[in-house]
Amino acid sequence: MDHELSMYNIRTDLALEAQEIATQGQETSAIPGVWSESESADGISVTRMEIKTDQAAQQIGKMVGHYVTLEVPDLRQGDSTLQDKVATSFAKEFEAFLKRIGITENSSVLIVGLGNLNVTPDALGPVVVDNIMVTRHFFELMPDQVSPGYRPVSAIAPGVLGTTGIESSDIVQGIVEKSKPDLIIAVDALAAKSLERVNTTIQIADTGIHPGSGIGNKRKGLTKDILGVPVIGIGVPTVVYASTIVNNTMDLVFEHMKKHTENTDPLFGVFGKMEETERLQLVKEVLNPLGHDLLVTPKEIDKFMEDIANVIASGLNAALHEAVDTDNVAAYTH
Amino acid sequence: MDHELSMYNIRTDLALEAQEIATQGQETSAIPGVWSESESADGISVTRMEIKTDQAAQQIGKMVGHYVTLEVPDLRQGDSTLQDKVATSFAKEFEAFLKRIGITENSSVLIVGLGNLNVTPDALGPVVVDNIMVTRHFFELMPDQVSPGYRPVSAIAPGVLGTTGIESSDIVQGIVEKSKPDLIIAVDALAAKSLERVNTTIQIADTGIHPGSGIGNKRKGLTKDILGVPVIGIGVPTVVYASTIVNNTMDLVFEHMKKHTENTDPLFGVFGKMEETERLQLVKEVLNPLGHDLLVTPKEIDKFMEDIANVIASGLNAALHEAVDTDNVAAYTH
Amino acid sequence: MDHELSMYNIRTDLALEAQEIATQGQETSAIPGVWSESESADGISVTRMEIKTDQAAQQIGKMVGHYVTLEVPDLRQGDSTLQDKVATSFAKEFEAFLKRIGITENSSVLIVGLGNLNVTPDALGPVVVDNIMVTRHFFELMPDQVSPGYRPVSAIAPGVLGTTGIESSDIVQGIVEKSKPDLIIAVDALAAKSLERVNTTIQIADTGIHPGSGIGNKRKGLTKDILGVPVIGIGVPTVVYASTIVNNTMDLVFEHMKKHTENTDPLFGVFGKMEETERLQLVKEVLNPLGHDLLVTPKEIDKFMEDIANVIASGLNAALHEAVDTDNVAAYTH
Amino acid sequence: MDHELSMYNIRTDLALEAQEIATQGQETSAIPGVWSESESADGISVTRMEIKTDQAAQQIGKMVGHYVTLEVPDLRQGDSTLQDKVATSFAKEFEAFLKRIGITENSSVLIVGLGNLNVTPDALGPVVVDNIMVTRHFFELMPDQVSPGYRPVSAIAPGVLGTTGIESSDIVQGIVEKSKPDLIIAVDALAAKSLERVNTTIQIADTGIHPGSGIGNKRKGLTKDILGVPVIGIGVPTVVYASTIVNNTMDLVFEHMKKHTENTDPLFGVFGKMEETERLQLVKEVLNPLGHDLLVTPKEIDKFMEDIANVIASGLNAALHEAVDTDNVAAYTH
Repeated sequence: MDHELSMYNIRTDLALEAQEIATQGQETSAIPGVWSESESADGISVTRMEIKTDQAAQQIGKMVGHYVTLEVPDLRQGDSTLQDKVATSFAKEFEAFLKRIGITENSSVLIVGLGNLNVTPDALGPVVVDNIMVTRHFFELMPDQVSPGYRPVSAIAPGVLGTTGIESSDIVQGIVEKSKPDLIIAVDALAAKSLERVNTTIQIADTGIHPGSGIGNKRKGLTKDILGVPVIGIGVPTVVYASTIVNNTMDLVFEHMKKHTENTDPLFGVFGKMEETERLQLVKEVLNPLGHDLLVTPKEIDKFMEDIANVIASGLNAALHEAVDTDNVAAYTH
Repeated sequence: MDHELSMYNIRTDLALEAQEIATQGQETSAIPGVWSESESADGISVTRMEIKTDQAAQQIGKMVGHYVTLEVPDLRQGDSTLQDKVATSFAKEFEAFLKRIGITENSSVLIVGLGNLNVTPDALGPVVVDNIMVTRHFFELMPDQVSPGYRPVSAIAPGVLGTTGIESSDIVQGIVEKSKPDLIIAVDALAAKSLERVNTTIQIADTGIHPGSGIGNKRKGLTKDILGVPVIGIGVPTVVYASTIVNNTMDLVFEHMKKHTENTDPLFGVFGKMEETERLQLVKEVLNPLGHDLLVTPKEIDKFMEDIANVIASGLNAALHEAVDTDNVAAYTH
Repeated sequence: MDHELSMYNIRTDLALEAQEIATQGQETSAIPGVWSESESADGISVTRMEIKTDQAAQQIGKMVGHYVTLEVPDLRQGDSTLQDKVATSFAKEFEAFLKRIGITENSSVLIVGLGNLNVTPDALGPVVVDNIMVTRHFFELMPDQVSPGYRPVSAIAPGVLGTTGIESSDIVQGIVEKSKPDLIIAVDALAAKSLERVNTTIQIADTGIHPGSGIGNKRKGLTKDILGVPVIGIGVPTVVYASTIVNNTMDLVFEHMKKHTENTDPLFGVFGKMEETERLQLVKEVLNPLGHDLLVTPKEIDKFMEDIANVIASGLNAALHEAVDTDNVAAYTH
Repeated sequence: MDHELSMYNIRTDLALEAQEIATQGQETSAIPGVWSESESADGISVTRMEIKTDQAAQQIGKMVGHYVTLEVPDLRQGDSTLQDKVATSFAKEFEAFLKRIGITENSSVLIVGLGNLNVTPDALGPVVVDNIMVTRHFFELMPDQVSPGYRPVSAIAPGVLGTTGIESSDIVQGIVEKSKPDLIIAVDALAAKSLERVNTTIQIADTGIHPGSGIGNKRKGLTKDILGVPVIGIGVPTVVYASTIVNNTMDLVFEHMKKHTENTDPLFGVFGKMEETERLQLVKEVLNPLGHDLLVTPKEIDKFMEDIANVIASGLNAALHEAVDTDNVAAYTH
């Protein structure tokens, strides 16, 4: 997660969660101006969503645009057969996504891997970039020799503000002006709303990458407004705040107790009756001054990152180049 | 944390915490058969402890033996001046520890780095081993040419059961029989009792490395009984269970509220009056079946591990070789 | 290449080359007591050889035993289809090799990865070990639950003398005594006789790993004599001496000129008429005192090592476990 | 060595060598329009040179400009005391160099690390960038809180054409236009003219980075012309062509024989009397069609690269920030 760009918006990095919060778990149809559909197979749930109106956008707290979310609870098991299925599924969804938003087969693409290679849970972008099949230079240097079924793809990992001294957004803008891609795909790690989302969920969105709107935050995002070309963001939650773990767990404890006791009031008192956001606020108030509200990640993060970066890179390679087979995409990465 | 050896004993990997639990925060003197002293300077707290009697051992839940704990809350700040101070402090404590338990200057030492190099928060042992000044082969191959001020030091990272197929304890035993060291120093990552302990605390103990006593657990440890020579364990907490974070945070929330309200009963009900262990039990009962009681580690673990492994390796180099200066130990590692 | 074990024997790490030198390029049949056969397909040459008598062994300068050599000149091109073919070919040869020397399907195997993980061209052994499918612990801990088609496999990278202070041979001996495998497979990097062999040739031999017979060299090898069980060595040339490059190139230059000129005497004088070994001797005499006879490796060694380690690891996984398919072995490594 | 930028110019990546070739080893003064001075201490030779006239530039084959070369034959010995001395010496030379070419204390600097992080001998630029003390963002975000003694420094590793699909020069140009530095420092690995130069020589030059003038090569360099601000190049030879090794060695062999024999004509014939360039041409003609004229690097390149990258990074940190002490610069890198 490029701290500069995405970390602030922790409330709702995932549109799916934002919608769930907005509808408080009721049926989606409850929100006018939102279309969505879901399907599930082979342990992979896919939700496609469109936020069509400003009103809906405001209600949900996410921008007008297209969103696809893949949820694969078992993705952390290290099962390479499942990983291949997810890569294929991701490739198909991504291809359909490109068509839906009007990107043609010959459009040139710049893939931007946000984040810090030396911080494992933040290395998603750079590791995906390392495994992308780059072709733009062939189109530039020997255009008549490129086989059919490929498009011009370039890829860059611009680093993070703390190690380059320059906003990622500025670096990308400079590169876009020189290399003139038709589309940008930005890959980034996100903060999760719960521990079980970490490295099991992938979101695709055509709304770009937005730094949060924190007070005095002048950070620039990666958006069509700034860069002049459409920006698709691919995000995976890889870390979670300690306070989020606490809050989620308390929910689970309350639910658990409700199964056994009719009246849980004496059990948890006022605390048990707080709104979730109110309780999270309390937890944060206690942890923050002590410096304990750390972002944490599972112990096995090295392997998890390698696996999901491979899924995304091989999925992108298959989706972007017709000549690369969506049925066996993993062979093109290492 | 070599899963095989230390993960099970999560209740009390640190003697210091075990004692605190046993005395429920009262004065140490409360437990007969336990000697301890503490000092603090430059942001480093050192506690030296001896559990002298079986009775005391039983009461605390840790073995009879010597323990030294360094606590450095700011060690994660990345301040290299502080890191050098901690390395020097660790070297001095370790030297004194060796004398206290009767290890002489010429004793040969085998350093065992437990854990898995490919799992960042578990890589403490292997990374320390990578930075150890190894000298045994000079004593073997050209004994008359070794400068004074050095002792024979060898070092091995035996891997973990899951990647070698052999118990670490068996591998070390085989190597000990061939190389015949006088002393073993085993370095291992531990599970912490709280998030703020992660990569800020170092424990030295002469009681060896003990796998937990879980049901049906036939794992062998690294102990004098098994290996025939004294074993000093060096442990650093690098991960924490999600349930532990929840439990600690609830404590903090309760304390926080007590400052503001005289009677917190209505606030938290039965839940607030539970014993800490009872509450932890409840949290674990809820999280475990869902597979949510993961071991987690801070997002910045890569840098934290590099820093503390350097502290320990440079401290050991200085403590083991008189010719290496305790005042500038860090220069000997990379 | 574990410096301790293999570096000294630079004259003839490969039996194939030793034989070529002995026969001076004539037909193999010239040496009594040597059986050999070759075949070639898909860019892969396989030579199977047996040195049957002590006399033949002396003549060739290699021990009595079985040898298989795979030569794949294009292996450095990074073609993953070819790599998969080589892995499959290696697996088949290795399986046949096991049968030929009488190793049964249930024999337990310890794989020893010699070399130094932190020295890229010397990291073959440790990287192969990292990708081995280890199963011994399942047989030990839950023998009745292991699926058919697997055998007990363990794996260890013992490090090198310079970083452990202990001879690799002693470490392996200790582990063998504790874990009691029926067979040892030792993987090691070698010095090549020519630059084009680097990372394109794989040798399998049942003669163990022998340190050279350099003056005063008391190094112990990995052999049946020392370890009590058969030892199969797998070697890949990954480095070459500067002097070897010079010598080979001069050969090529002489050959090149002979094509154009009838009498090359005036062109190269005495130098051109020297025996190859004599000329190599001269080159070494000149380079050695200057410290210029370095071992060198191709610039792209990082990728080459990754590729060939994957070939060997996936080949071994398929050859050792019947349940792993020889036709698609690469899927089992990362 | 960013293949795109520097690989082609193999004849004379180092001005020092170019001058030696031009003067055929005679006194420097022989070339009008060239000023140079040398000094040597602590095993470090420093040569400062200025090519003042176009005529001199043409004669030497290097551009008009300032050059400083540090030669440290023992730099590969792994002696950290020597490395610290070299870092300090490099820092002092670099500071003086900046003054000589008129760069003031407050000028903002962009450091560009050319090359490929995943190819060890080509990773110099990216590894140096990883260890640079970056400050530009502090000047941008909180200009009034920056301590005196620092200047705005940013740093980027733009990758190589083969992995990004975009010319490094285009990427840097885009970033320069957005971040507007006053000076660019480009760090790159070079091809050496002899094996002993590899990782023992550092060149500083104010002439920018120039891709060779190979046939049909349309590559853009990093120069003031293209980027609009001065460009200082820092280069270290890290690889050498096999043909270069052969050629150098033949020189050494000829010299060696001349010491023993008055008339070497019968020894080496025509070959021995060839001009060096003519002989190199012959060797290349023989090796090239076989694909044997590989770029090679010493076996220990991993350690060599780590060491020299630290020397350069710590030297730059000290030279660029007055507040960083030139007497102990190494402490600021890891």
